Amino acid sequence: MSLLDYFRISKVGTASLAKERLQILVAHERTSKHQPSYLPQLQKELLEVIQKYVKVSQDAISVTFEQDEHQETLELNIVLPDNQAKNT
Amino acid sequence: MSLLDYFRISKVGTASLAKERLQILVAHERTSKHQPSYLPQLQKELLEVIQKYVKVSQDAISVTFEQDEHQETLELNIVLPDNQAKNT
Repeated sequence: MSLLDYFRISKVGTASLAKERLQILVAHERTSKHQPSYLPQLQKELLEVIQKYVKVSQDAISVTFEQDEHQETLELNIVLPDNQAKNT
Repeated sequence: MSLLDYFRISKVGTASLAKERLQILVAHERTSKHQPSYLPQLQKELLEVIQKYVKVSQDAISVTFEQDEHQETLELNIVLPDNQAKNT
């Protein structure tokens, strides 16, 4: 299953809510743990870029960061305001 | 299955290659099609942000963009240079 398939499946579950959503995932597969993570800083910059395109309040953004031996994942879920679609 | 689970599964298949990878996905669920897509422009800006953190050549980046009635998805797959882990 490709990652795009995953989005297609997850879409079915949320379509009935009729909310505009923006979901961003960053996965960093690492071969070494001996380097600092830049994902927390990257997260801030990604949000700054996104806010150029969509006006979202901080409480509409949920962030999940997970880390294990081989991989770090950062997941940003943003619920867009209802009037976003009409005004842009 | 959460999106983070997906990454955990996909990790297993590629870990043996021992390449550093960065994968970024953007999914935009839309309630209306009557708005221009900003994902192509967003993609350029995301890559600019990422290049601040990792030095990658253009040919190490593969981009997939898909669009259907309800959703747009943008997938960026970046193979990081071997020496990235050692030098940073």
